[in-house]
Amino acid sequence: MTVNAVAALRAADVVFFLDKPGEARELSDLREAILAAHVPDGGPRVVRAEDPPRDRTTPAYAGAVHDWRARRADVLEGMVRDNLAPGERGAVLVWGDPALYDSIIAVFDDLRGRGTLDLDVRVLPGISSISALAARHGVTFNQVAGAVQITTGRRLAAGWPEGVDDVIVMLDAQNAFTRYVDEPDLVIHWGAYVGTADELLISGPLAQVADRIVETRTRARAAKGWIMDSYLLRRPARG
Amino acid sequence: MTVNAVAALRAADVVFFLDKPGEARELSDLREAILAAHVPDGGPRVVRAEDPPRDRTTPAYAGAVHDWRARRADVLEGMVRDNLAPGERGAVLVWGDPALYDSIIAVFDDLRGRGTLDLDVRVLPGISSISALAARHGVTFNQVAGAVQITTGRRLAAGWPEGVDDVIVMLDAQNAFTRYVDEPDLVIHWGAYVGTADELLISGPLAQVADRIVETRTRARAAKGWIMDSYLLRRPARG
Ligand SMILES: C[S@@+](CC[C@H](N)C(=O)[O-])C[C@H]1O[C@@H](n2cnc3c(N)ncnc32)[C@H](O)[C@@H]1O
Ligand SMILES: C[S@@+](CC[C@H](N)C(=O)[O-])C[C@H]1O[C@@H](n2cnc3c(N)ncnc32)[C@H](O)[C@@H]1O
Repeated sequence: MTVNAVAALRAADVVFFLDKPGEARELSDLREAILAAHVPDGGPRVVRAEDPPRDRTTPAYAGAVHDWRARRADVLEGMVRDNLAPGERGAVLVWGDPALYDSIIAVFDDLRGRGTLDLDVRVLPGISSISALAARHGVTFNQVAGAVQITTGRRLAAGWPEGVDDVIVMLDAQNAFTRYVDEPDLVIHWGAYVGTADELLISGPLAQVADRIVETRTRARAAKGWIMDSYLLRRPARG
Repeated sequence: MTVNAVAALRAADVVFFLDKPGEARELSDLREAILAAHVPDGGPRVVRAEDPPRDRTTPAYAGAVHDWRARRADVLEGMVRDNLAPGERGAVLVWGDPALYDSIIAVFDDLRGRGTLDLDVRVLPGISSISALAARHGVTFNQVAGAVQITTGRRLAAGWPEGVDDVIVMLDAQNAFTRYVDEPDLVIHWGAYVGTADELLISGPLAQVADRIVETRTRARAAKGWIMDSYLLRRPARG
């Protein structure tokens, strides 16, 4: 949490919790612990709702995302209307940085586009899981004056991104890094549950540590029922 | 600043300030103001030194960077040796996130590699200027499930990165975005001095706002003597 985010939370009249359906109980507990740690008693009222589920079965991916966004905006609209008086402030907590693979900004855009509520939206940046990952490993994202690509497991599985030596991978449900174990000079810095008490970190030459990451990942996911992990893959810059 | 960084600063015995040679006076004032805002009187002692200048004339870029890093490690080694007793804690402040285009981690790696000091180094993540930029514009880095590349002005001037629709550009001294003004669908979100009292923000279709950014940038840089700016270029995803 940043000092600015804590101040904003304390100044809020209401904190909205959008629980994901089927979200690990642990994650919502973590969120409450964060609130309790930073906001004194008698702080904002907490209002909860369930995020509508996303239809993952449809092949029309973009359409499904659009539709999901609209349904989330419906929920948010109802929450705001029912709980915020004119002039009051609401806060929504997001994991990490809202700029990275999070849809809350798009949901608010949708909501504002409706013109049904008179809302002032202010976004505060957060520490992304990948900034936390890099810090824990004591590494940088980029090599000197180099570029870095942030991408998804699905994209990495389809091929190494053109023109970059450093790739940061999020949303990887399929161990996409295993495709690259035969590349001799790759190094990986992997982490799961980064920043929590269950943090797992593995780093080293990919060929040497890939199996250990796959096993650790499988075991952790089975034990907890969910996993959040990401990694940086680095190839020595040819320069 | 994050809550964790504030706690680390308060727990430090010494804060080391590595002033860049010729650095705008304003930047070191800003750093002092940050320290004063978060650390009560009687906090850590402040120790200053000048960062050695970097030789920008040599064509051997990688060699020059390596040499500069070693000279910075020399300075840091001297500062630590002269100012920290065994068991004491030192802190070094970095602008933004140390994972992004910052050399402090490499300098500490160099220093630790010497084996001359018994140092425990811990990196705390920070809010990068690009997270702050995205938040101020209320935008995300990536489009749904898309990739994003973080790169330099020099690289963008050489060509649009392959395979990405979203490009974040830092260290651009040459208005590299002007190369792309004829691409019809590009949108830019630009910001200078983001997060400070002098913040400047411009966003819109690149073809429409590029000139205004160039002018604003030139004027601001002339007025203050320095500029720190970055931007996100977005092309609608073909999907
Ligand atoms: C929907 S995205 C949200 C990212 C988030 N906005 C951020 O800034 O980190 C979820 C992905 O973020 C990464 N992630 C989130 N929390 C993490 C954690 N604690 N440790 C490692 N990776 C994490 C994982 O790659 C996960 O698949
Ligand atoms: C040496 S890099 C350091 C980046 C820093 N570690 C970070 O996380 O933002 C300097 C570059 O960061 C960007 N930058 C730093 N501070 C900025 C600010 N306040 N507003 C906009 N861009 C900034 C600019 O692109 C600048 O050329």
